[in-house]
Amino acid sequence: MKAKLISRALVAVSLCVGSIVHAQDPLPSWNDTSTKKAIIDFVARVTKEGSPDFVKLEERIATFDNDGTLWAEKPIYFQFQFAIDRVKALAPQHPQWKKQKPFTYILAGDMKALLADGKSMMTLMAVSHTGMTTDEFNKIVKEWLHTAKHPKTGRLYTQMVYQPMLELLAYLRANGFTTFIVSGGGVEFMRCFAEQTYGIPPQQVVGSSSKMKYEIRDGKPVLLRLPEVQFIDDKQGKPIGIETFIGRRPIAAFGNSDGDQQMLEWTMAGSGARFVFIVHHDDAEREWAYDRKSDVGRLDKAWDEALAKGWIVVSMKDDWKTIFPQLSE
Amino acid sequence: MKAKLISRALVAVSLCVGSIVHAQDPLPSWNDTSTKKAIIDFVARVTKEGSPDFVKLEERIATFDNDGTLWAEKPIYFQFQFAIDRVKALAPQHPQWKKQKPFTYILAGDMKALLADGKSMMTLMAVSHTGMTTDEFNKIVKEWLHTAKHPKTGRLYTQMVYQPMLELLAYLRANGFTTFIVSGGGVEFMRCFAEQTYGIPPQQVVGSSSKMKYEIRDGKPVLLRLPEVQFIDDKQGKPIGIETFIGRRPIAAFGNSDGDQQMLEWTMAGSGARFVFIVHHDDAEREWAYDRKSDVGRLDKAWDEALAKGWIVVSMKDDWKTIFPQLSE
Repeated sequence: MKAKLISRALVAVSLCVGSIVHAQDPLPSWNDTSTKKAIIDFVARVTKEGSPDFVKLEERIATFDNDGTLWAEKPIYFQFQFAIDRVKALAPQHPQWKKQKPFTYILAGDMKALLADGKSMMTLMAVSHTGMTTDEFNKIVKEWLHTAKHPKTGRLYTQMVYQPMLELLAYLRANGFTTFIVSGGGVEFMRCFAEQTYGIPPQQVVGSSSKMKYEIRDGKPVLLRLPEVQFIDDKQGKPIGIETFIGRRPIAAFGNSDGDQQMLEWTMAGSGARFVFIVHHDDAEREWAYDRKSDVGRLDKAWDEALAKGWIVVSMKDDWKTIFPQLSE
Repeated sequence: MKAKLISRALVAVSLCVGSIVHAQDPLPSWNDTSTKKAIIDFVARVTKEGSPDFVKLEERIATFDNDGTLWAEKPIYFQFQFAIDRVKALAPQHPQWKKQKPFTYILAGDMKALLADGKSMMTLMAVSHTGMTTDEFNKIVKEWLHTAKHPKTGRLYTQMVYQPMLELLAYLRANGFTTFIVSGGGVEFMRCFAEQTYGIPPQQVVGSSSKMKYEIRDGKPVLLRLPEVQFIDDKQGKPIGIETFIGRRPIAAFGNSDGDQQMLEWTMAGSGARFVFIVHHDDAEREWAYDRKSDVGRLDKAWDEALAKGWIVVSMKDDWKTIFPQLSE
């Protein structure tokens, strides 16, 4: 116990040294623009004791949208791609799908028809995400994350994360923030990679969820995922998700689309120092360029509000030196 | 930044020294019985690196029921008492309540009739807990917690907590556990005192919740509490609440009634070292004595399962040296 605690203190000391060494540039993948300055200025103000903007450790809550904010979302939300791949994998066991919508869309490769039809997507999500235990679901998702490749880049989906945002997460945590994901994505889907990819443990992931059922199977309890929605953590649902799961208003929040508008409003409406930004996908060369007309990650109303209220809009093209992390191999 | 980080490391070091000083008896309000030995033995096994039972820091999740486990629940659940007091406070503004059930029960002081009627309790909860913003609700609850006194002891309700359990919470945290409340009580009600009383921050409180609505009022966003249930975190709901909010199976869980049975089953069904106990209220002199026949905190089926499976049943009478914390004044 004694040795363990002392070693923990030493870890704390060595972490400090690490932070001091890198203190020169905590955000190396961000260009030296006004956005980067604003981030560093905000963190300095809320962490400096005696500053009028000082915020106690326990109040330093930062929330991040996931799709389009922490990782990419084109050509389709990655969780939808998982659902499609899952249906393809299950198809041989369901010969009736050959004549049944929406499965016919998938088997014919007609993604446009599939995505245009909300009801189809719901059916697809139900088939791929429910009817199994939580343990079974997590295993399927993890297998997919370890093998499926992005159609454009050939990377694993977990390698489609934004390097500048990974640095922002680490920088905020080094300054005493607790970082949360608050996303429309499925909470259990995201937890399969959030800890390893973002350093965000399961209890700091807020997302949409299905109803579940507790059952004893062969003497062992399981949680069965049911094809019924429990909670949708998007748009107005985001402040509600924050209140229900976190129970404290963030002082910083980051998003990229209309789905994040209410989370940013809710964050900015608190008292004291506040910080939000919207990531604008304006880099067709290194990533994608889309906003007001996009089916995926539409940025329209939230952009207008950002312009009206002076919220920072991050230009991926101008503000980010690199987009995706360099791969070691 | 530099000074701050170094001072944080020093805090870590001084916390260590504190822990070492108290290492002699981390649970002074527990008698030296087999229960206390079992707690200390479990913590030693899961925290000792190299031990076959070693558990990584991030997996050291402990969940605690609240009513009857962390604080008392007699003569009625304290949140019900809050609802009743709230209705009394609101009554002058609602003259029609004089002739309307269930308000007539309260105004006549007929608690027996009120508690016997589930529908009445639901109406009462709706009137007292919804129809206001989250900020308004929190303010009302905090005022009540600062003023209302327990009818038997004359203590504030937050002084009706169990000293041995406060020590257990602190002991587990000192050993790297993250401590959660998982209770049938209202999540926002509990968050009004959990941080100050138990050292448990809002994001580590899991409970029952109402639906909410996000609205802009006078240009400012508010969350309105609606009279509709979102989630009931009791019995089968507890493992579901754990999965939805925490996303990780606890390795230790503590309860006192049939409402905790499934949480304990779920905890014990994981692999590796596990620890659960049930608090048995068997001390009529210092607290209350009740179990199989009680309306509040009934312990019947969970007791049978504890006996069958060898789960520890804590005797408040024999295992606890003190029940409530000593008051400083």
